[in-house]
Amino acid sequence: MVNYPNGKKNSYHALASSAGGRGMALEKDINETNSRYLEEDLAVIHKKPTPVTIVKVDYPSREHAKITEAYFKLPSTTDYNGIYRGRYVDFEAKECTLKTSFPLKSIHAHQIRHLDAVLRHGAIAFVIVRFTHLGITWFVPAEDMIRYVNETTRSSIPVAWFEEHGVKIPFNYVKPVDYLKILDRLYFEDRQ
Amino acid sequence: MVNYPNGKKNSYHALASSAGGRGMALEKDINETNSRYLEEDLAVIHKKPTPVTIVKVDYPSREHAKITEAYFKLPSTTDYNGIYRGRYVDFEAKECTLKTSFPLKSIHAHQIRHLDAVLRHGAIAFVIVRFTHLGITWFVPAEDMIRYVNETTRSSIPVAWFEEHGVKIPFNYVKPVDYLKILDRLYFEDRQ
Repeated sequence: MVNYPNGKKNSYHALASSAGGRGMALEKDINETNSRYLEEDLAVIHKKPTPVTIVKVDYPSREHAKITEAYFKLPSTTDYNGIYRGRYVDFEAKECTLKTSFPLKSIHAHQIRHLDAVLRHGAIAFVIVRFTHLGITWFVPAEDMIRYVNETTRSSIPVAWFEEHGVKIPFNYVKPVDYLKILDRLYFEDRQ
Repeated sequence: MVNYPNGKKNSYHALASSAGGRGMALEKDINETNSRYLEEDLAVIHKKPTPVTIVKVDYPSREHAKITEAYFKLPSTTDYNGIYRGRYVDFEAKECTLKTSFPLKSIHAHQIRHLDAVLRHGAIAFVIVRFTHLGITWFVPAEDMIRYVNETTRSSIPVAWFEEHGVKIPFNYVKPVDYLKILDRLYFEDRQ
């Protein structure tokens, strides 16, 4: 594993976000947006539960099973999937606390393989990357991200790359990460 | 909640299967089948992780977070989804230890609502029901299951209904629950 400029702490944060509960602003925003989509019957897209290996369960009563020993597992797929306008939709979302680049180790190799596999079968697949200190949330087609990962020798993606390959996701208070708007434009040719 | 003939024990078993680990034969068979589909690049379909609410996490070291208190959550969606031949696929799987009927409370109301929602958006949605003592695994289109649930006053589905609305899922050692064969016939008109 290669170190990157700002030290290890950020990557630890990124890991902790999907696991422990810190730095979950993006996740919260996406969940809120997905709830809206669901309420308005626009799309059915959910976050998958955090994968854990359950080792010990206590049954003090039938209804109240209590897990007393469990461990976080590496996810074998992305965090979000569902259906929009008849198409299978699949994506991963990452927060990045660096200002100049996005560390590639934030996205696991099997997540890249997963995105590649669903694309082969006809999915709309992408990655959402939020640079928290820059206040920008990018939509990146999985095709572009995969190509970069396969061709680069770097351990991170510079911010300038996002300017070229990404689309800024519009923010509004009701739908904080309104990515369906971008799908309409990129995949359904609703160009207005 | 209504009781059904053989007493409550079975339904507890069914619950425990997705949670604690008993009676997971069907889940294991489906996971094995899905792994094969993935290896052969036929489809990308995964089981979602069991949803848990994590309350307490110990961090004895950075790499080894240990969850020491967590609880099972009711799933808000079905257990399985993914993509096949460009279509979004979504299903729930249940084992039934009764010989004469399938208790409706095995499937939660929000799972039925979820199946209904994905159907509206163009999904292939279905339910797999295995009668363990009869040795039969049924494929039931979600449309039929939803119609039954909405129209019935009963608390279970009699076995005879499956004979009429279901399709028996073929078994083979490599793919123990080979449901893609049925999708080909029912949704892609590959009738041989």
